[in-house]
Parts: sequence; C-alpha cells; structure tokens
Amino acid sequence: MIILGIDPGTATTGFGVIEKNKKGTWTALEFGVITTDKGLHDAERLHVLAHDLEEIIKKYKPAAAGVEKLYFETNVKTAITVAQARGTILLTLAQHSVPIYEFTPLQVKSTLTGYGSADKKQMQFMIKHTFGLQTTPKPDDAADALAIALCCANSIRRPR
Amino acid sequence: MIILGIDPGTATTGFGVIEKNKKGTWTALEFGVITTDKGLHDAERLHVLAHDLEEIIKKYKPAAAGVEKLYFETNVKTAITVAQARGTILLTLAQHSVPIYEFTPLQVKSTLTGYGSADKKQMQFMIKHTFGLQTTPKPDDAADALAIALCCANSIRRPR
Repeated sequence: MIILGIDPGTATTGFGVIEKNKKGTWTALEFGVITTDKGLHDAERLHVLAHDLEEIIKKYKPAAAGVEKLYFETNVKTAITVAQARGTILLTLAQHSVPIYEFTPLQVKSTLTGYGSADKKQMQFMIKHTFGLQTTPKPDDAADALAIALCCANSIRRPR
Repeated sequence: MIILGIDPGTATTGFGVIEKNKKGTWTALEFGVITTDKGLHDAERLHVLAHDLEEIIKKYKPAAAGVEKLYFETNVKTAITVAQARGTILLTLAQHSVPIYEFTPLQVKSTLTGYGSADKKQMQFMIKHTFGLQTTPKPDDAADALAIALCCANSIRRPR
C-alpha cells in the first residue's frame, strides 16, 4: 500500500510517498517539495502546484493521502494564500479519486512521538528512525510530509 | 467580448456572464450561483465547484474573468474555507487560459457607483440599470458577480 503525505504551502508544498513492506514496516519511496515561482500570478502558481501533484499521483497511484489541516491564529493574509494552495491540493486529489485524510499538526506529532508537544528535532529523529534513513529529510516541508503520510498510514491501519 | 465575473464562496459562488453589444453597452447573458452540498467533504465540494465552473467557461469562452479579492479581518476559519474555493476558481481559470483580473469589494463599488461606500441597494440599482433588467438579480452573490464582471470589463477598456 502506497500513501501520500502533503504539507500545503504557497511557495513550497512538501510531499512524501511511503510504501508498506512485507515485514509491515514503511519505506520512503520519494520525498521533496513542489515549489512555485514568486514572480507568477497566484493562479499560475496554483496551476504549477496542481500539475506537479498530478504527476506524483499518476506515478505512485496512492491508496490514500494525508493532508495537514491549516491552523492559523493571527496572520489572515498568509492563511488565505496557503488555503488557496490547500484548495488546489484537495481538488486535485478528489479529481483523481484519492481518499483524503486530514490531520492537525498536533495529531501528526502525537502519532509519531506519542505526545503532541514534541519539538522539531524529536520529529526528525522519529522520521529518520522509522524510514531507516541515513540523514534527516530536507527541506523541513518534505520531512513534515513524510510524517503526515505515516500518520495517514497509521490512521488507516487502526480505523477509529 | 464576453466577460465572466466570479464572487467566490464556500457554499455559494456567484457567477455572471456579460457580453458587449454593438452599441457598446453590456448584456447579462447568464447569472446565478454554483452551490455545493454542506454534507460533502471539502475536497468533494471543490470538485463540484471546479466542474460547474468549467461548464460555464466551456459554454461562453470568456475573454477574461474578474474575481473578487478576499478581504477578511476577523474570522480566520471562514477565510480559510473561502480561500480554498478561491484557489479552485483561480486554478480552473488558469487551466483554461482565461486571463484573470482581481478586484477588492471597494474597487467594484467605486466602478459601479463612483464611490466606494455605496450600499447594497445602490449597487443593485446600478446593476439593474446597466444591464436593463426588470428585476434585481437574485441571489445577492449572482448580482455581485455581475458587478465584478462589469468592473473587469471597464478595467480592460481603460487599461491602467
């Protein structure tokens, strides 16, 4: 089973593709970021994001996708541009019939480390350890996307 | 020349399609709202929105589209869901190569009535008058979309 994790952003959207091995452990097949040029109009940036995400969906045909929920308290302007990107991501997944699971940052942290107040270093350690990687996945958005994918995988294995 | 106006929303997105006559005046070809079922997942609602908007684009092949800019100060949660819908709208227009013009509510009011503090009744009067309609377009989102389309048309006629 292949699971896609997505950490939505305006300039940078993290993605992580993971697969369950026969032993029941998980391998990171690919991770990275989709970036869009700041010089482009919002619509063109969303177009690039949708296109690149489609390529990933077509390549891996994920059984499900985990997408981080937005959680903003102060900066409405940032919230709006990230939400536009998130809308594009949700739409593209729906157009390709990929089931969507949504998680708050707190849920992702709790799933990986057992407690919601884990810091970035603890999260990175768990991601390295879980996927048997030599180094911490870079950039941070890619590492976050792998964490979201794992959270999604756990959620499917243990239906609530 | 056919212009599309869009007033983005989560449950209800207003649209208005206008065309320039030989006399130089404008006719409202079609206006209304795209609605999505509250019971559906966010992604499915965006899917419906993108599909219905595509049908309008294919039917009228607009030369340009005016889309209202989001302007929120307080309710971040509402801002996020509307921005997700707006992201879907911008993406769908870009995927169909429709040039996009964006306007704040203030710009739309100023264009139609000559001043930015016009109230809803004054706006509705100007829309009825401009398009020679017998009654005020309903619902309000459809009337707003016609106003945005007209604002877009004016902006193209008088490039800044």
